[in-house]
Parts: sequence; structure tokens; C-alpha cells
Amino acid sequence: MLSKNQIKEIQSLQLKKFRDSGKLFIAEGIKTVCEIIDQRPEALKEIFATRDFIESHSEKIGSLRVTEASETDLKKISLQNTPNHVLSVCHYFDETPPVFDFKSNFSLYLDDVRDPGNLGTIIRLAGWFGLSTIFCSPASCDFYNPKVIQSTMGAFLRVNVVYTGLPELLAQIPGVPVYGAVLNGKSLYAEKPGNGLIIIGNEANGISEANLELVSNPITIPAGGQNNTESLNAAIATSIIVSEFFRQLKL
Amino acid sequence: MLSKNQIKEIQSLQLKKFRDSGKLFIAEGIKTVCEIIDQRPEALKEIFATRDFIESHSEKIGSLRVTEASETDLKKISLQNTPNHVLSVCHYFDETPPVFDFKSNFSLYLDDVRDPGNLGTIIRLAGWFGLSTIFCSPASCDFYNPKVIQSTMGAFLRVNVVYTGLPELLAQIPGVPVYGAVLNGKSLYAEKPGNGLIIIGNEANGISEANLELVSNPITIPAGGQNNTESLNAAIATSIIVSEFFRQLKL
Repeated sequence: MLSKNQIKEIQSLQLKKFRDSGKLFIAEGIKTVCEIIDQRPEALKEIFATRDFIESHSEKIGSLRVTEASETDLKKISLQNTPNHVLSVCHYFDETPPVFDFKSNFSLYLDDVRDPGNLGTIIRLAGWFGLSTIFCSPASCDFYNPKVIQSTMGAFLRVNVVYTGLPELLAQIPGVPVYGAVLNGKSLYAEKPGNGLIIIGNEANGISEANLELVSNPITIPAGGQNNTESLNAAIATSIIVSEFFRQLKL
Repeated sequence: MLSKNQIKEIQSLQLKKFRDSGKLFIAEGIKTVCEIIDQRPEALKEIFATRDFIESHSEKIGSLRVTEASETDLKKISLQNTPNHVLSVCHYFDETPPVFDFKSNFSLYLDDVRDPGNLGTIIRLAGWFGLSTIFCSPASCDFYNPKVIQSTMGAFLRVNVVYTGLPELLAQIPGVPVYGAVLNGKSLYAEKPGNGLIIIGNEANGISEANLELVSNPITIPAGGQNNTESLNAAIATSIIVSEFFRQLKL
């Protein structure tokens, strides 16, 4: 049974200011919580779970702090539409210094990507293609936003997301080519990619003017239709570019 | 000013059974409604818009049926978080016979893709790469779901989405190769693609067992990381496959 105060505290973590003040975030769902227990148990502050979950996972839970919660309580603290069996409150991860492995890999810089679903999906994509660190502009969506965590499907545990201005980042990696996803660049498929940084712009406005000046290789995904004025979703464009870089550089 | 009844009727279109009974759906936002006016004005039943929108678009609106709505009313009928200036109620499109252009192009078959954001994003992707018709299993998400319409960003006006069983579809296109996105197929990048049908499975369960038997060429997006157990989002996987088919077949 959760107290009103507990419920209120957990619900408050939907907002960045409350996450930041306690350095706490929410991660929920059986698969996700089990992955945290396996991979980053030190991050767990507390687990809230149904009796069923607790009984069927007692070995895995071990000495971790668990509070039994009714399905009604879980509905109150969960962000999911369908009832979850378990929700965890976790400490922010220790800041891991970025790995600059541009000798053997490429990476992403998200320039004000704002939609949590897009950021989470891109982190999941990065996990799939083995990008260990990706970078975000300071005004990009918050990594600890519950919708981001949810849509990474566990990849938030394995991909290091570093918030930094682009000029500061580039100062640390001199000579690395800077690709930018734009509407009037060289065809992605014609470009011979190198191990560089790929800039993905904001959903509505693309790459900011200031950062566009730092792009050495503007690239575009060619459209195939006639009279198509559509754009592509930011996460979709990212996935197409990452896949093509991966194919050319890693296979 | 909208009557309570009007508001209720429009809100009811969020549910498939009410859409189907009146053969009506919602499409909202300035860009989308302007595209409908330009490309499919015959589909418009009624437009609900702020006075501002009506005054600034009077020429475009012409003799179309428009009702002035307050921002409060629009909030009630809109599905968006941020207030919209215009919402339209449209008639279902006339069923367009599928174009089987497998001599010059490839296409997609979505096998129970359920998430409206995924379906909408895939339609948008199809529009970008010039796929004029895509196919969905009967249990896939409804094309006229407002979240689908919204996330196509206008591509619902240009891509024909046909609901059909896979065996029935294949009976009409004998000899066309059937690719399937699976976890243990041939590498997407190693496959030499042909103008065929690409099957994308359900978000949680992949391609159904029955349909899997109809796949002639199972393909997989190779993962790049170590010990990665992640999967890819269905729309992301689709975009990577479509991009690679496009690159090899059309460029």
C-alpha cells in the first residue's frame, strides 16, 4: 500500500524540475526493471510491484528495496495505459565521460530534438548499431523523461547520452568530419562516409543556423516520389543515415 | 460556436465504430487541412476553424463549408496538446484499386502493425520514397485513426493503403518475391533486393506464423553492438529496409 505522499512524489518525477532536484527518474515494466536489476542495480532506489511480481521474481530482487503496490496504486504512478506490474524509481546515472571512438566508429549529435519518442527511439537505434556514446544539444529533450526511458526499450542502460554544445564538442575532436542532415545536401547514398559526427536537427526547424556553419558535409536522403513535399520524421531520417553509415563503414 | 451535439459527434470520431458508421474521419492542423483543400477537396465534409484562420485563408476556402469555432471549442474537439486553428471532418476516401507496379517498384505489407504512430510514420516514409500503394493485414491499425492521419504529415493524401490478407494479395501477384523482416534471416545489406513485397511484422510478435510460411526471402538488419539484446522499433526497421531497397533498386 502506497501512501498519498509516496504517490505524489513519484508522480512529480514526470516533471524535469522535480527529477533534477532529487536526481531521480522513473523506469517501468517487467523487462526494463529486470534489465536494471541485472545491469545497473546500484541505480535502483526503490521498486514498486504487485505481489505477483514480487513472488515470481524474489530471487532476482534479492535484497533490493521493494514495496508491494496494488494495481490501483500502480495505475496512479504509471505512465502506461495498460497496467504495469512493476515500476522503479532510480538514481540518475553517474556522469560517464564520453568515449570519443571516432577512429573506429561514428556518432550522432542531436541538435534540439524535442520529442521524447524520437529521442528514445534514436537511443534504441544507437544501441542496436553499437554507438556507445551519442551527443545532444543542451536544449534537446531530457534523457530522464519517462517517455524517453520507455521508448528506448532498455537501451538507456547501454548508450551514454552526453549533453554539450556543438562548438565545445568539436573542440575536443579536431579533424573529425561533421555530417549534417539537411534538405539540399549531397545524396546520402553518393557520399562516402567517414567516421564522423552526424548532426540531426530539430523536428520542425532542422539544424540551427549557428551549428549549420560547423557542418563540413551536408547530406540529404533523396526522395523517390514525384511532387512529394513531405519530410521525414527525425528518428526515421536518423535511422536511414545511421544504417547507411554502418553499411559502408562497418561491413 | 459549436453545439454540444456537434462537439460530441466530432469527439466520437476518435473511435473506429463511429468513424465506420458515418464513414467520416478527423484531420487537423493548418498544413494538413490546406493540403486536403488543394488535393482532395471532395473529401471535405466540414471545416471548423478560428476566425483568424477563416479570414487569412478565405480565398483557399472558397465555397467550402466552414464553421467558426472558438479556441475553447477547438480544444474540445482536437486531439492535439497545443491548440489548433483548424480541424476538418472528412469523408472516407473512395476505395482506389491497388496499383501493382512490381515491375518498377517494391512495396510493403504490414502484418498487424498496431501502433498508430508506427503506421502513420510508415505511410509518411512510403510517401517520401514514392511507394504509391502499401498493404496492411485486416487486423492492422485503422488508417483513419486520427493519430495515424496526424503522423503521416499529409502523406495519407498520396499513399493508397489497402487492407487485405496476405494469401489473397499474393494470389494476385504471382512470382513476386516476398521479403520478410525477421531476426534470423540473411543480412539486409548482403541481400540483392528485387522488386518485391516486404513483410513487416507486429511490434511485439513479428510476422505471424501463417504469413511467415509465405516469405521467400527472410532478411535481418544486422546489429552492430556487443551483447545487444535490443530490438528495433517497427517503423525504424521499416525505414532502414525501405532505404536499402530504394538505394539498390532505384539509384
